[in-house]
Amino acid sequence: MSDIKYSFGLWTVGWNGADPFGSATRPALDPAESIRKLADLGASAFTFHDNDVFPFGAGEDERRQHIDSVKKAAEETGLVCEMVTTNTFTHPIFKAGAFTSNSREIRRFGLRKVLKNVDLAAEMGAGLFVMWGGREGTEYDNSKDLHTAHARYAEGIDTVAAYIKSKGYDMKIALEPKPNEPRGDIFLPTIGHAIALIDTLDNGDIVGLNPETGHEQMAGLNYTHGLALAMYAGKLFHIDLNGQHGPKYDQDLVFGHGDLLSAFFTVDLLENGTPNGGISRYEGYRHFDYKPSRTEGLDGVWESAAANMATYDLLAAKAKAYREDAEVQAAFEKAGIFESAQPTLAEGESFESFLAEADPNADELAERHEGLVQLHQLALKHLIG
Amino acid sequence: MSDIKYSFGLWTVGWNGADPFGSATRPALDPAESIRKLADLGASAFTFHDNDVFPFGAGEDERRQHIDSVKKAAEETGLVCEMVTTNTFTHPIFKAGAFTSNSREIRRFGLRKVLKNVDLAAEMGAGLFVMWGGREGTEYDNSKDLHTAHARYAEGIDTVAAYIKSKGYDMKIALEPKPNEPRGDIFLPTIGHAIALIDTLDNGDIVGLNPETGHEQMAGLNYTHGLALAMYAGKLFHIDLNGQHGPKYDQDLVFGHGDLLSAFFTVDLLENGTPNGGISRYEGYRHFDYKPSRTEGLDGVWESAAANMATYDLLAAKAKAYREDAEVQAAFEKAGIFESAQPTLAEGESFESFLAEADPNADELAERHEGLVQLHQLALKHLIG
Amino acid sequence: MSDIKYSFGLWTVGWNGADPFGSATRPALDPAESIRKLADLGASAFTFHDNDVFPFGAGEDERRQHIDSVKKAAEETGLVCEMVTTNTFTHPIFKAGAFTSNSREIRRFGLRKVLKNVDLAAEMGAGLFVMWGGREGTEYDNSKDLHTAHARYAEGIDTVAAYIKSKGYDMKIALEPKPNEPRGDIFLPTIGHAIALIDTLDNGDIVGLNPETGHEQMAGLNYTHGLALAMYAGKLFHIDLNGQHGPKYDQDLVFGHGDLLSAFFTVDLLENGTPNGGISRYEGYRHFDYKPSRTEGLDGVWESAAANMATYDLLAAKAKAYREDAEVQAAFEKAGIFESAQPTLAEGESFESFLAEADPNADELAERHEGLVQLHQLALKHLIG
Amino acid sequence: MSDIKYSFGLWTVGWNGADPFGSATRPALDPAESIRKLADLGASAFTFHDNDVFPFGAGEDERRQHIDSVKKAAEETGLVCEMVTTNTFTHPIFKAGAFTSNSREIRRFGLRKVLKNVDLAAEMGAGLFVMWGGREGTEYDNSKDLHTAHARYAEGIDTVAAYIKSKGYDMKIALEPKPNEPRGDIFLPTIGHAIALIDTLDNGDIVGLNPETGHEQMAGLNYTHGLALAMYAGKLFHIDLNGQHGPKYDQDLVFGHGDLLSAFFTVDLLENGTPNGGISRYEGYRHFDYKPSRTEGLDGVWESAAANMATYDLLAAKAKAYREDAEVQAAFEKAGIFESAQPTLAEGESFESFLAEADPNADELAERHEGLVQLHQLALKHLIG
Repeated sequence: MSDIKYSFGLWTVGWNGADPFGSATRPALDPAESIRKLADLGASAFTFHDNDVFPFGAGEDERRQHIDSVKKAAEETGLVCEMVTTNTFTHPIFKAGAFTSNSREIRRFGLRKVLKNVDLAAEMGAGLFVMWGGREGTEYDNSKDLHTAHARYAEGIDTVAAYIKSKGYDMKIALEPKPNEPRGDIFLPTIGHAIALIDTLDNGDIVGLNPETGHEQMAGLNYTHGLALAMYAGKLFHIDLNGQHGPKYDQDLVFGHGDLLSAFFTVDLLENGTPNGGISRYEGYRHFDYKPSRTEGLDGVWESAAANMATYDLLAAKAKAYREDAEVQAAFEKAGIFESAQPTLAEGESFESFLAEADPNADELAERHEGLVQLHQLALKHLIG
Repeated sequence: MSDIKYSFGLWTVGWNGADPFGSATRPALDPAESIRKLADLGASAFTFHDNDVFPFGAGEDERRQHIDSVKKAAEETGLVCEMVTTNTFTHPIFKAGAFTSNSREIRRFGLRKVLKNVDLAAEMGAGLFVMWGGREGTEYDNSKDLHTAHARYAEGIDTVAAYIKSKGYDMKIALEPKPNEPRGDIFLPTIGHAIALIDTLDNGDIVGLNPETGHEQMAGLNYTHGLALAMYAGKLFHIDLNGQHGPKYDQDLVFGHGDLLSAFFTVDLLENGTPNGGISRYEGYRHFDYKPSRTEGLDGVWESAAANMATYDLLAAKAKAYREDAEVQAAFEKAGIFESAQPTLAEGESFESFLAEADPNADELAERHEGLVQLHQLALKHLIG
Repeated sequence: MSDIKYSFGLWTVGWNGADPFGSATRPALDPAESIRKLADLGASAFTFHDNDVFPFGAGEDERRQHIDSVKKAAEETGLVCEMVTTNTFTHPIFKAGAFTSNSREIRRFGLRKVLKNVDLAAEMGAGLFVMWGGREGTEYDNSKDLHTAHARYAEGIDTVAAYIKSKGYDMKIALEPKPNEPRGDIFLPTIGHAIALIDTLDNGDIVGLNPETGHEQMAGLNYTHGLALAMYAGKLFHIDLNGQHGPKYDQDLVFGHGDLLSAFFTVDLLENGTPNGGISRYEGYRHFDYKPSRTEGLDGVWESAAANMATYDLLAAKAKAYREDAEVQAAFEKAGIFESAQPTLAEGESFESFLAEADPNADELAERHEGLVQLHQLALKHLIG
Repeated sequence: MSDIKYSFGLWTVGWNGADPFGSATRPALDPAESIRKLADLGASAFTFHDNDVFPFGAGEDERRQHIDSVKKAAEETGLVCEMVTTNTFTHPIFKAGAFTSNSREIRRFGLRKVLKNVDLAAEMGAGLFVMWGGREGTEYDNSKDLHTAHARYAEGIDTVAAYIKSKGYDMKIALEPKPNEPRGDIFLPTIGHAIALIDTLDNGDIVGLNPETGHEQMAGLNYTHGLALAMYAGKLFHIDLNGQHGPKYDQDLVFGHGDLLSAFFTVDLLENGTPNGGISRYEGYRHFDYKPSRTEGLDGVWESAAANMATYDLLAAKAKAYREDAEVQAAFEKAGIFESAQPTLAEGESFESFLAEADPNADELAERHEGLVQLHQLALKHLIG
């Protein structure tokens, strides 16, 4: 086991296997037991939705009892609760949205549920509060006023951020984009859309992203590119790693069990940053948001949890060797990777002098060959060679 | 013909039909002739890439001759040149990108080409300058430093914006997102990603978007939702209308010839704004960026150009009737469309009082039924009834 | 209401709204009540899975009671039970497949369940027996021997067909392809794959297809093209109509609420056959396999059921007018639609004489323009004009 | 270099880099030179379209000269011409199809071109004749009579097969499915659809498939599953290996540079057959149909050609070790892989006795856990461990 810090959602190993066409194949797990088991496997932290730990609508005593059980397991194992998130999608009240419900009463219900959960996150010592608005969307374009829906979404997020600040919590919010499922089209479908909304907020300084591998890939987008944009914008606050095979239902496979080459480059970015140093090593937990396949029993649950970490460890070792390889560095040089760090304009260069400069011969410049296939093949050889 | 103002790219009707597996099926068109023909068909404006009008590398005399020919046609017909854009993708020099090329020399070449084209746009009276970075991407995740690539992209856009300001032009920039093709993954793949980068710019105030129907749909995303987000962020500066059948190669069909129901709601948003008035009627040109199918001769070119406008006209009339229908307004009321305009929190409401409020019964609230399928069916009946 | 005969699965209106991220939003419906309600709405027939009517594992008395209740409702309303199908996907026993389970015991369990259900179908007077192998697939390519899995699948289907013959039932089997969900990759993912397997069977003469609109569209395939191939191969035995927005989770929208233009051409094919008469009007029930959106209450359930029929009626009327329009017929003529009925070779033409014939001028032949965009626009005008 | 026999299309390394948005980045290659270079790299065979070797419309002398040049290179290098195919897609005459053109004259032109090319294939000693009907499709569902289009397609293929038989050539036909691009929807979009049409032919015994990795993946389908079905149906006659990232434009990447885990299982199937032996090692050439990325110069062309073989070699070695690993065999046993070879019914088992058998307890059977995630992780460890 490496010294990389891994974290798991309690809902991941706790998934009972019920899907749209089938009933549960596994029993419910006691969250405290899951924490102990994850500790045994070598994880460093855990995360949860409120209703992973206590039932929707639980009274204060019942709620407290469940929370204390989790806290006890955390203390005993040394596992950290690094993130808390709120379930605003399971109960029928949220069927048409929580923060973007047309119903003000439902929006207030949802917002109150979230704010109370912020307090719990603080109590748990979580520095991160994730918000996935899985029901914030539509099946039909006329189901919502597309302006007020965005306004209400922004209002809701901004209010949570303001609440965090008002309470003085050392906590940030991370939005989790997803293009669809369970709604036909979900608002904030990608990393980009979420940043775009954050930039309209009053309290956007403490609001960033929790991008999930499979969610971006469900839109056919490049996850690693998306992470880089989020990091460029200073908004990568948390990360959800898993596996997916392109645009289809949300598979939540083990990390690496989907697009393996893409997983390699994701790990390379997270572990080694970018070649010119603009992005440095990601310091947060490597958090897995996956589902043990419905075919598996409890043994398979823990085997799959371990597989996430083992695969990440393997990829991290290979990415390190890849980046340290002199042949790779030479191929970077040939590709112009280092040259890309130079600004296009010289410092203080005026438009006049820049425009007055004669164009070089385009056909000659077009003969520049960067050896990009060869460089990719070098990476592949490191991965499987 | 309605009083809606339509605009066409000269490259649309001018496409010769060459595709990855076939050679040209139609002759090149004289841009001036295209302008005259578009005027006959009832268009109000045209747009172009520099190299739609004059060849790459043309000398100043040749360039001037071609530009003057276009200007003459514009004057004679009264057609306005509302937008100009730059070809930074056809010549092999741009094979690995223009603004994000690893080669500083190529980046400078590309940037100079763009800046010179800004001057041409100003000369043409265009208030809009579109930038589609079709080559700004990769096939392999290690072909570029993903941080410096974004940094160079941002630098390039910011420089163009600064140049516009320095020259005092009354001109805005609109970025055009696309997820892939001709690159495996293009940077700024969606509306959201582009806004996210714009928000990092020094001169982002004059930089917005030119979203294309098919480009968002190539990622399985909802175009109308995307437009609404762009409008919510104040960034819808231009629009490219066409047709597409989901995630596959870029089809550039006639507007409405792809997802027709989605086209109806796009037109409804553009023509009628949102029900609560947060977004009002879009005032820019309805600009088509489509390709007359390769099977067509010149007759088909003009028939397809006319089909774009005729379809939009039809959809606009139907959207108007739909919005004016009392039954639809009643269904909006039932759905809570108007209720969504009310903020979730009351003005000045404190966290304390909000949190102290008792939750209503969730199961009862879940019984709220908004009639969303019926409302959608009303729209469908207006569309085809 | 037209004289078109509509049919509904009892599981469609009966869906309680539970999805992968949310619990039921509606109560279970009594199947007999659903039949009565569908009769009121104007449907002609119904279909069901065994466990839509009686629970998995029900004893004979319980089973009989439920069946009798359904038969009584059918008799009272005059609704026909036109198709029966078997649930081999909900219970955990089928989590890794029924006919393709690696476990022989589970395969035998599944096969016995299906054969008993064939008897029920015969008792109900259903001439059609649908088999959807939703769990016959894998998440991982090594979970099954890909040869024996196909062999066991073929054995299972062949056995059911042999059983039908052995009992002398007037019944055919229709396989329902689907590319994925709930398995990562389902065997027989498309119309084509299913026909390919049928062609290996001993009793394939009574085995055909039940293609579903959304299932083909989840693979980005053209449903109408697929229907035409199935008809060309003599294998269109039943049909599942609904709506979908391309490659994503299985949406099961109301027919027409997905890709509307595609739905128009589907209806045109079913109602009017092909222009040259090679395919004539489809004579089976127009069967809907959709889900009332989870946002809806019981009113919405019945409104959505009615919407399927109303939309189909509208499209059928429009398709009829389109095909009878002289302008359309002229455009068919111009496009060469009728010319396509002529075989490429003359009757009895020898290879020698054919090859000896001089080629016409290719460039001249390439000038043939068939007016395909204009023809499509004519269809669109009929649809929304 | 392994003893695996690799083959390349001359159009692959010969691609000049022109794409829908860019002009050629590389010079045309002399086919004879390509053959020599491929021989140097270790390839065993080559394939070509007629117009890869001589221009469309070439006179007999010109044609002969080009062919002789290729034959000479083949003789000198020892490379075998294992397959020939016909270009019925580049010239504008084929813009609306060859075999499915509505124009009988164009169909006859296309068919004659193909038959003449069959003679060339025989002359070259090729045992395989591939047909990719890239233009056999539509953008609009009413562009063709969907019945006569299939009838003409079948007629064309059947005629070619009859011609091969009439000439006594030792040659088979392999159809190449593709879902779309360059047409909106291509007929025979998948492996399944192609088999379904073949099964309607008079001469289908010598007609099979040439499935391409990326083509199936463009429809989100599992290529390895598709190969297995083709093999089960006795129709895998040839193979096109390359790389693709899901539903988007046809990328034609180096084999393994797309979905690497899927490539591993493809190689495992081809090299090792299925665990129970129902499918044995594939004996044909490992044929690459890829494109050297447009960014590459000539060095990159040959580096990418070599990368295809090197990656396949690596995967083949790893697949061999994976299958020979006792732990893997034990995991196969646990998963029931070997059990799947047992027919579901016993030999001669009657329906009566089968149905009379009491069902085992379903809940207990559902407790069978096959360790599928663990088995997959074993494969992954072999691949990258």
